Amino acid sequence: MYRTHNCGELRIENVGNEVTLSGWIQSSRDFGGLTFIDLRDRYGITQLVFSMDENKEMCESARKTGREFVIQAKGVVRERSNKNPNRPTGEIEIDVKSFEVLNSSETPPFTIEDKTDGGDELRMKYRYLDIRRNPVKENLIFRSKCSLEVRKYLGGSDFVEVETPFLIKSTPEGARDFIVPSRLNKGQFYALPQSPQTFKQLLMVAGMDKYYQIVKCFRDEDLRADRQPEFTQIDCEMSYVHRDDILDTFEGLTKHLFKTLKGVELEDFPRMDYDYAMKTYGSDKPDLRFDMKFVELNDLAKGKGFSVFDDAELVVGINAKGQSKEYSNKAIKKLTEWVKRPQIGAKGLVYVKFEEDGMIRSSVGKFFSEEQIKSWGDLMSADAGDMLLILSGEVDKVRKQLGELRLEMARNMGLMKDGDFKPVWILDFPLLEWDEDADRFFAMHHPFTAPKKEEIEKMKSGDFETLKNLKADAYDLVINGAEIGGGSIRIHDRELQSKNFSLLGFTKEEAQKQFGFLLGAFEYGAPPHGGIAFGFDRLCAVMNNQSSIRDYIAFPKNNQGKDVMIDAPDTVDEEQLIELGLQLRKD
Amino acid sequence: MYRTHNCGELRIENVGNEVTLSGWIQSSRDFGGLTFIDLRDRYGITQLVFSMDENKEMCESARKTGREFVIQAKGVVRERSNKNPNRPTGEIEIDVKSFEVLNSSETPPFTIEDKTDGGDELRMKYRYLDIRRNPVKENLIFRSKCSLEVRKYLGGSDFVEVETPFLIKSTPEGARDFIVPSRLNKGQFYALPQSPQTFKQLLMVAGMDKYYQIVKCFRDEDLRADRQPEFTQIDCEMSYVHRDDILDTFEGLTKHLFKTLKGVELEDFPRMDYDYAMKTYGSDKPDLRFDMKFVELNDLAKGKGFSVFDDAELVVGINAKGQSKEYSNKAIKKLTEWVKRPQIGAKGLVYVKFEEDGMIRSSVGKFFSEEQIKSWGDLMSADAGDMLLILSGEVDKVRKQLGELRLEMARNMGLMKDGDFKPVWILDFPLLEWDEDADRFFAMHHPFTAPKKEEIEKMKSGDFETLKNLKADAYDLVINGAEIGGGSIRIHDRELQSKNFSLLGFTKEEAQKQFGFLLGAFEYGAPPHGGIAFGFDRLCAVMNNQSSIRDYIAFPKNNQGKDVMIDAPDTVDEEQLIELGLQLRKD
Repeated sequence: MYRTHNCGELRIENVGNEVTLSGWIQSSRDFGGLTFIDLRDRYGITQLVFSMDENKEMCESARKTGREFVIQAKGVVRERSNKNPNRPTGEIEIDVKSFEVLNSSETPPFTIEDKTDGGDELRMKYRYLDIRRNPVKENLIFRSKCSLEVRKYLGGSDFVEVETPFLIKSTPEGARDFIVPSRLNKGQFYALPQSPQTFKQLLMVAGMDKYYQIVKCFRDEDLRADRQPEFTQIDCEMSYVHRDDILDTFEGLTKHLFKTLKGVELEDFPRMDYDYAMKTYGSDKPDLRFDMKFVELNDLAKGKGFSVFDDAELVVGINAKGQSKEYSNKAIKKLTEWVKRPQIGAKGLVYVKFEEDGMIRSSVGKFFSEEQIKSWGDLMSADAGDMLLILSGEVDKVRKQLGELRLEMARNMGLMKDGDFKPVWILDFPLLEWDEDADRFFAMHHPFTAPKKEEIEKMKSGDFETLKNLKADAYDLVINGAEIGGGSIRIHDRELQSKNFSLLGFTKEEAQKQFGFLLGAFEYGAPPHGGIAFGFDRLCAVMNNQSSIRDYIAFPKNNQGKDVMIDAPDTVDEEQLIELGLQLRKD
Repeated sequence: MYRTHNCGELRIENVGNEVTLSGWIQSSRDFGGLTFIDLRDRYGITQLVFSMDENKEMCESARKTGREFVIQAKGVVRERSNKNPNRPTGEIEIDVKSFEVLNSSETPPFTIEDKTDGGDELRMKYRYLDIRRNPVKENLIFRSKCSLEVRKYLGGSDFVEVETPFLIKSTPEGARDFIVPSRLNKGQFYALPQSPQTFKQLLMVAGMDKYYQIVKCFRDEDLRADRQPEFTQIDCEMSYVHRDDILDTFEGLTKHLFKTLKGVELEDFPRMDYDYAMKTYGSDKPDLRFDMKFVELNDLAKGKGFSVFDDAELVVGINAKGQSKEYSNKAIKKLTEWVKRPQIGAKGLVYVKFEEDGMIRSSVGKFFSEEQIKSWGDLMSADAGDMLLILSGEVDKVRKQLGELRLEMARNMGLMKDGDFKPVWILDFPLLEWDEDADRFFAMHHPFTAPKKEEIEKMKSGDFETLKNLKADAYDLVINGAEIGGGSIRIHDRELQSKNFSLLGFTKEEAQKQFGFLLGAFEYGAPPHGGIAFGFDRLCAVMNNQSSIRDYIAFPKNNQGKDVMIDAPDTVDEEQLIELGLQLRKD
């Protein structure tokens, strides 16, 4: 037997027990006649003691081991004279009677500590060492517990987990597919699923009623920070439901996860229209941990002769409470530069400071009377000490810019507090998005999303402007400004689905070639249905107040889509390509 | 709301309730003034009644619906006069007050009944209709319950479910990989994992201690019946364990699954050496629902002048209890033809009948004395009425042939009883298999399997014969003659792993290129570890006495690797290939 106990479980009650432990050497220290080794495994750290007096030979060989050696030690649990209250095993140590080196180790390329000296690149190359570190290890354990709780909750609510296939069919709609050449059918290709969307809808046609799956999805996109070519979804679909049935179910799931895994009781989630969110927060994923709502100033600020505002479609501001003192001219200049960066794209920034002493300072003081500026302050509930930040320009752009500024101010003001969770459902997204370049509509959610019931007639006969303003029965769950997931009620009527494909610029033949199986299925009694998918990696990160998903993924890819640990992708033998009927393109 | 209840839950206690049901029309019958509709959903069937007297218009439109229409009906639960004891809802029916057609249906291409008139091809093409049938639906629900129980059990035993990547690296060892061209790294390819083998070992190096995953695996093999290019494993790995720790854990899991899902209490699983299994059952996956052990007759049957036996390496038989009467000359001739088919490959079949009246009849009566033949019967515990079946030839071949014959006899004799479950662990498999054609050894399990501890020295220095007879610390779980899974203790020592690669004919460079990351990891304190993987599809089938895995997979591929429902694989746009730097080979 390699061990009687793990390295995290021995306590003062075990004093006198003969035990065997196995693990990695975290560190060792020699003090005169004694050698102390901290032995580590997944469960904790236990101190081993070797004595020169008791067994010189053994103690000397213990001194020859190094960090990350794997050893087995047998000995007796005894009380420590010098206790460590920060460690669960800190009251005891092992008086070692015999030990064995199970495997040696080279000196690791970075320290196996909570705060490591290893950079990202090195940590990824030696991910198997990185995972030995508590923060990464705990993230992976959290993820495992979270997926089990999801399954217990949904499995306990009559949901059936059905595995949908990975080798499916490529569809040009949406993101780019990874494709897989078929050897048995040369010249043909499978595609890896971007999501199980069509299969879960087929499962509804199949009468499965309540489906879920925690499932890998694949997108061959140009990778941005925190995007992964393979990622995991909690994917669900339900039949004979309306939107609120789905929202209630997944609000229940989310509350359950926060309660069981974080001990946090969430209140009922507010529900907010997409239009309202865009108008009030400049984003369809508003962070509601803080207020700082947008206030539109068109009525008060336009037509007073300040051409920047007069020429703008929208003048809109936020009130940064208590910040007038915090922002020197230099700080405001820096903030102005920040909003003018190409990533944000504002042309300038107008500020108004309501100083503690009653003075008003503003970058537009010479264009407006104090009274006029005070009227802005009244509308924006400004108190002495507050600072207004105002942007102007085209409606969509300026909202987006102010949304970014709102977040930046919240960061600066320390308003994004750990342990504070503010979920919100965003409802009634637009059905279609017009793409100027492609000169066609794209589905905002996906081509199977139903319009809201009251919009179906408009959809069938509407003109361009009507179509652009159509609302979908689609929804997103947002927590602390991060999109956790989204879904929609689906179209279950073949005719309406065909209409939607035609709005999206599919010819009948294209729709038939790509989605014929789904349209065919709709001929045989498709029930009303809808669903949702959560980004599982993101959910785990948000539940732990972390902004990156990477350390919730055991073996992530880097921004070039590479696994630098195993060195994938890699070339393959010519023979493999020949078998697949492929060759590398010469041009 | 689409429904207040599902179609499986209303009982006599609900009489008088106003309810709303939604579902599919299973069937409808008109009797004079009444129309009866059986409404079906995942949960059951409930009878709806429409009355011409009460609402002529509604009843007439109900009569216009057809099979598999989706309808919603509101009405009142009432007691049936003509009860159906075979249906949980059979005591009640719904007196329909209003109804709505939610979707119509074409006439389905086969009947949605437990026994359908649809052939395999049609069922697969319309899988979404096939899944509406109880047997397929129940299989998928069983699978879902089974995976949840696996997770509860392992999750409750400190196992961490870690998702390993799908986009990995191709290795020529083992079966053929599916490969995935990389667009961001043109000319390079990912491979889909045949199993998470190397990653789970890296997780042990990473200190994860106990890992599991229910995970899709991929093999691009020429498909045989009941093989799928994508299949699911319960995959596990543990650190600081010996073989029996792993066997005990997964025997515990298997017992738990049988108990919770089938109500079957399994006794402790017998453990059997590979050599014994081959010698006694001619198979490393013996079906122990019946005895019929092999008895070797070399001592009694060779050297008596019957050249067929004299020239054979092995003369070996089974005793088909009580079968002498059952097998006419004609039946024996048929059996002889059966063993001579190329799939079995025996040269002939010798029988001995010990008739009820004491007579002995045998196909080799003229070569052996009655006394000699009786001595065979004594050794094989033959009673009056028994029939011995004897094959002879080369050891390995004849064992395999007699193993097949043993199964065939058990089928004929009705010895494979449903509900009878006989698990067995097969231990100590050979480490290496010699391949005459390739003129090299292959790993019988995989290249990471450790030899048994006592064989390590032999492995380092042994000659060809010694190497051929090396035993691995590898094991399989077999239930009712089906291999449920297997695993091994792994090599955790870099030097031994390198030795194994060299025995398998890898040059140092090849080993480094393909498995350098694993060999590298072994430099940093790899713990002793081992693991196992169960075939999840197979486990589900065996637990339900079914021989095919196909109906435990929601959307299986056919024998050409095609999904005939969605028509995958398919051609892709030339543009996609250009982006990937690929072209179809012209030759």
